[in-house]
Amino acid sequence: MVRFLDGTRSKMFILLPFLSTFLLVKSQGNSMNNVETERQAEESHRQDSANLLIFIMLLTLTILTIWLFKHRRFRFLHETGLAMIYGLLVGVILRFGVHVPQSTSDVVLSCAVNASPATLLVNVSGRFYEYTLKGEVSRAKGHQVQDDEMLRKVTFDPEVFFNILLPPIIFHAGYSLKRRHFFRNIGSILAYAFMGTVISCFVIGLIMYGFVSFMKVVGQLGGDFYFTDCLFFGAIVSATDPVTVLAIFNELKVDVDLYALLFGESVLNDAVAIVLSSSIVAYQPAGDNSHSFEAMAMLKSFGVFLGVFSGSFALGVATGVVTAFVTKFTKLRDFPLLETALFFLMSWSTFLLAEACGFTGVVAVLFCGITQAHYTYNNLSPESQDRTKQLFELLNFLAENFIFSYMGLTLFSFQSHVFNPLFIIGAFLAVFLGRAANIYPLSFLLNLGRRNKIGYNLQHVMMFAGLRGAMTFALSIRDTATYARQMMFSTTLLIVFFTVWVCGGGTMPMLSFMSIPVGVDSDQENTSATMLDGSQRRNTKHESAWPFRIWYNFDRNYLKPLLTHSGPPLTATLPSCCGPLARCLTSPQAYENEGQLHDDDDFILNDASVSSMYADVTVSTDASGSRTVNRKRSSTGAGLPDDGFDNELALSENEVAIRGTRLVLPMDDPLDAPTTVTLPPPPSPPKSDPRRHRL
Amino acid sequence: MVRFLDGTRSKMFILLPFLSTFLLVKSQGNSMNNVETERQAEESHRQDSANLLIFIMLLTLTILTIWLFKHRRFRFLHETGLAMIYGLLVGVILRFGVHVPQSTSDVVLSCAVNASPATLLVNVSGRFYEYTLKGEVSRAKGHQVQDDEMLRKVTFDPEVFFNILLPPIIFHAGYSLKRRHFFRNIGSILAYAFMGTVISCFVIGLIMYGFVSFMKVVGQLGGDFYFTDCLFFGAIVSATDPVTVLAIFNELKVDVDLYALLFGESVLNDAVAIVLSSSIVAYQPAGDNSHSFEAMAMLKSFGVFLGVFSGSFALGVATGVVTAFVTKFTKLRDFPLLETALFFLMSWSTFLLAEACGFTGVVAVLFCGITQAHYTYNNLSPESQDRTKQLFELLNFLAENFIFSYMGLTLFSFQSHVFNPLFIIGAFLAVFLGRAANIYPLSFLLNLGRRNKIGYNLQHVMMFAGLRGAMTFALSIRDTATYARQMMFSTTLLIVFFTVWVCGGGTMPMLSFMSIPVGVDSDQENTSATMLDGSQRRNTKHESAWPFRIWYNFDRNYLKPLLTHSGPPLTATLPSCCGPLARCLTSPQAYENEGQLHDDDDFILNDASVSSMYADVTVSTDASGSRTVNRKRSSTGAGLPDDGFDNELALSENEVAIRGTRLVLPMDDPLDAPTTVTLPPPPSPPKSDPRRHRL
Repeated sequence: MVRFLDGTRSKMFILLPFLSTFLLVKSQGNSMNNVETERQAEESHRQDSANLLIFIMLLTLTILTIWLFKHRRFRFLHETGLAMIYGLLVGVILRFGVHVPQSTSDVVLSCAVNASPATLLVNVSGRFYEYTLKGEVSRAKGHQVQDDEMLRKVTFDPEVFFNILLPPIIFHAGYSLKRRHFFRNIGSILAYAFMGTVISCFVIGLIMYGFVSFMKVVGQLGGDFYFTDCLFFGAIVSATDPVTVLAIFNELKVDVDLYALLFGESVLNDAVAIVLSSSIVAYQPAGDNSHSFEAMAMLKSFGVFLGVFSGSFALGVATGVVTAFVTKFTKLRDFPLLETALFFLMSWSTFLLAEACGFTGVVAVLFCGITQAHYTYNNLSPESQDRTKQLFELLNFLAENFIFSYMGLTLFSFQSHVFNPLFIIGAFLAVFLGRAANIYPLSFLLNLGRRNKIGYNLQHVMMFAGLRGAMTFALSIRDTATYARQMMFSTTLLIVFFTVWVCGGGTMPMLSFMSIPVGVDSDQENTSATMLDGSQRRNTKHESAWPFRIWYNFDRNYLKPLLTHSGPPLTATLPSCCGPLARCLTSPQAYENEGQLHDDDDFILNDASVSSMYADVTVSTDASGSRTVNRKRSSTGAGLPDDGFDNELALSENEVAIRGTRLVLPMDDPLDAPTTVTLPPPPSPPKSDPRRHRL
Repeated sequence: MVRFLDGTRSKMFILLPFLSTFLLVKSQGNSMNNVETERQAEESHRQDSANLLIFIMLLTLTILTIWLFKHRRFRFLHETGLAMIYGLLVGVILRFGVHVPQSTSDVVLSCAVNASPATLLVNVSGRFYEYTLKGEVSRAKGHQVQDDEMLRKVTFDPEVFFNILLPPIIFHAGYSLKRRHFFRNIGSILAYAFMGTVISCFVIGLIMYGFVSFMKVVGQLGGDFYFTDCLFFGAIVSATDPVTVLAIFNELKVDVDLYALLFGESVLNDAVAIVLSSSIVAYQPAGDNSHSFEAMAMLKSFGVFLGVFSGSFALGVATGVVTAFVTKFTKLRDFPLLETALFFLMSWSTFLLAEACGFTGVVAVLFCGITQAHYTYNNLSPESQDRTKQLFELLNFLAENFIFSYMGLTLFSFQSHVFNPLFIIGAFLAVFLGRAANIYPLSFLLNLGRRNKIGYNLQHVMMFAGLRGAMTFALSIRDTATYARQMMFSTTLLIVFFTVWVCGGGTMPMLSFMSIPVGVDSDQENTSATMLDGSQRRNTKHESAWPFRIWYNFDRNYLKPLLTHSGPPLTATLPSCCGPLARCLTSPQAYENEGQLHDDDDFILNDASVSSMYADVTVSTDASGSRTVNRKRSSTGAGLPDDGFDNELALSENEVAIRGTRLVLPMDDPLDAPTTVTLPPPPSPPKSDPRRHRL
């Protein structure tokens, strides 16, 4: 991950080398004996446990309330909003309710330290103790640091967000991406995510620069605020959040295209925002404090952007491909636990590998997730498919709720808030205008090329649903050393609160106001499509641009057979000169099902079902040597509800054994018990147990 | 968790207060500017990622090799032994292969620090930077610390083991405990675990004291080694490891009683060893350096033992009970994700709560796991049952393999090994004798009271299978500051290696040598039991002592109806004065199935099936209001294989819908395809997909 250069702090090191410093030792200096030290260490450990316990309790409370809300079908406050409210409450209690007794005495010792290195070795009579830099303590407080030790303790290291909490969220986003709709709108999504974010970043940056200049004139600014800071602010608040959008739109079952556009944009958005913000920081040349605009540095930072983005992309895809290879060519699927563990470790190693190489781990993890879902997932045993899906779902849920409740907490526990009314007003205005400058012009341009136009009502909803969430928060808390960054952080927090509560809560009224149909099912859409005699199917194909069609054919003919067990075999698609290699790489299952596959393929091309665009035929070999074919996303797949996962992923929950018969199991309404061919038939299958539908 | 007092280090603090110290700042002092600092921070982050990546790669390699071994049915080396070998190899490479360039210059700055506090605040021209104590750096090295920075970096904080890696392992042990066989042998297990471990601890301690005294005379001892150190060593090496025993015996399907005894002992063992070792450390009164034997302090440490153990036990059970209540009285089961998250968080909070209260988190987590499996598990939705089981299985697998590969790594990466041949020989002898003093006398005494005697061949196997593993390692790495502890750590490492490789690998030959039947199935046992006309069933009941029978009735009549949905309703079992309360606490399902339950119960009492001792009838309510009864562990349950989980837990994998028909699905042999009533029938169901057996 590209690390942020902290301008002011770095400058200080240049200006003040070899300054005499003070060591403020927090200890009861009077009777420093073993009992005291042990007691302190134990106390500190207990305190840590208690702090973590606060968060666990917060999450537990959130879960119970979410359940209550879902149970009562109360939809105006999303769970993330709820987590924030609980976090706020606990923050208030910690700030004003709890008073930690201060240490009795402080020993201030002076010695010469030239700077603040990452590691400190303290020599106490021949023994060396290692100390690691934890971070800077609020400068205004000086000697009263003990006051807010409790509050400082509940403030996590910001890197925790980037290294522990964000990766599972982003991986899950990639892994659960509805690839069918995503690929159908790939062009528009890329336009919004890349061009749109850059536009938004610059629009916000320019507006903020205007505001900041005005504030400087009026005398409302308490510190430095450069143009690069404005651009940085633009970059971090341009990232829209996939979490809330996913949850709300999935529950409401809105138009699939709208959903794909918003979700796809917000997922890629995050990646763009990370790389953009770090490029902007790198834009300022080392040792140069001018913060001015320079064409050369601009180009350089654009190069950094491209390099980091493509590097992370390549790494993520590479690990995904390696995992696909391993799961394809070993019989690991006989041991689901091993398989799941391997999948988890490989996905995690993507993050670490990217970080170790200096790329952005989170971006790599996103593309790794997409690759894993597209290839590796098909090689996994059904049990591992379940396991991996559920594991990342759980990790995502926990990490997400943790981040949001932590956000609420930070409003009161963070020590150096700078709330500047003018800046806040400016920021809200800028965020609104930046979003508008992203959506409306791009939609206009895209509509020129799109057959399936993005209507004005959809544009308004996209404008409105640009919530800011976890990524914006994580980017802004990462560095809060300077005045500018502190002001940014406080303002960002307010923007997140506002968008999650107001925009998130108002999405449903907004949808009905814009007369966008809610409760649309993809299978319903397909039913009407069937009546249109396949015309829509062809539309869909034409809709995608030619680069995508080339990619689709390449993927179907070469990549899928290479990385999964699906046909057509490579021996049929590759030129004959590559024969031996192709034979080596094609799995025996692909040969066997060649004929069958061609039938299947024809069926797909003639069928009106949009959902069968990416028909995957997975052939699984079991321990006894027999083979079973899971024909995925054929006409049966079309009957499945849109549950936020791609059908391929959803299949394991609504699995049907297709062997001569085709069953459609519509499960959207729990009260509408489907007639399944089970023996003995359950009188009324519960919603919470989809397995009972299985044959 | 009771923290360890480090004698020597503490002593130093008393003797040398306010000594002048040195600050050895590791930084390139020549040009300390922002670029350097940033570069260093980035470098450090990359290095951390790379180090973690080493472990991930190690684990991935281990997984692939495990698969290969399982695939080829190679059983002489267990996966944990394998993980250790890979760890060893990487340790050798890191030690001798990789050379990290040294920093160009060191700046040694002197200042007065009176001790090594937990937190250090360094004042650099008005800015305060917080440093946290990471630990002591090897004292012998002095200024050459840079040399082994790489090796120090891959050495984790020992508390990571106690706070992150052990809890999931221990929780999983409790959660997957085969409660049926466990409760049948509860008396013997408690005797081995409590009395046996204490006996073993003192026998080892005394033998080691003799050896150490001899070594002192001969002049082979390079530092202090007190009697308390010997006892401490006895405590840490007395903990046998459940991991390897579980894996080997489960795979071999040995006699269920032997399995229950060994597994139950080794699980409770760990808890006893933790509390025992911390009590021994607390035994030495503060400020007293005599390390001599004292009756008063002995009693006090016994009090500490009892207090910590019972406190942790109570806390663990309490959180389990709270979780059972929450899952019973909310309809959280409609949302499996929320339910799983709640279950996970509550289980984790047990650990934190115990740590925050000063009890032992790991012990609390063990009893929490048992309670969760016994009560909460029955309230969960089938999907959550799957999810929680799989989640903890995965966490356990990863943590376990991580610990074992780390063990291998430590042999070369740890800086202060003290290998003393005499001590090592003494330790091996003491461990052997200590185990013998645990097993043989106790077995003799237990056999006086047991109907189902523990034969000599079983005793020999129990003696042989006392492997030392993760817990012994974690306890010994926790404190390696003094000479005595370093020698203990090095010796412990060798003991673990030896027992895992030699005893673990030799278990199968040992079993056949002792003519203990391998491949025994509990259903086979039951089949013969059925022919015995119910006599064995009654035997089993008589076998348990009266306290256990009282507990069983209390549990069945009051606790299960209170905490789960199972009958009989509390209104029937409680005295009439408690009527309103009983009505309030009984779930409506318990009433409805009262009659049915009595039938069921009678059936169980008349049935010869041993497995139906703890018959759980779970009544699930689904969203549509209809009720389904899952009759668990009735005659169907008896037909399920022993897969290391209790049948209750295993049920979800081999689920059968019992609705008038009873099906027996023996799945032990993957090649022996059972005839299941599926539509359409799979020609040969793969082993890796047990769901296909479902109706």
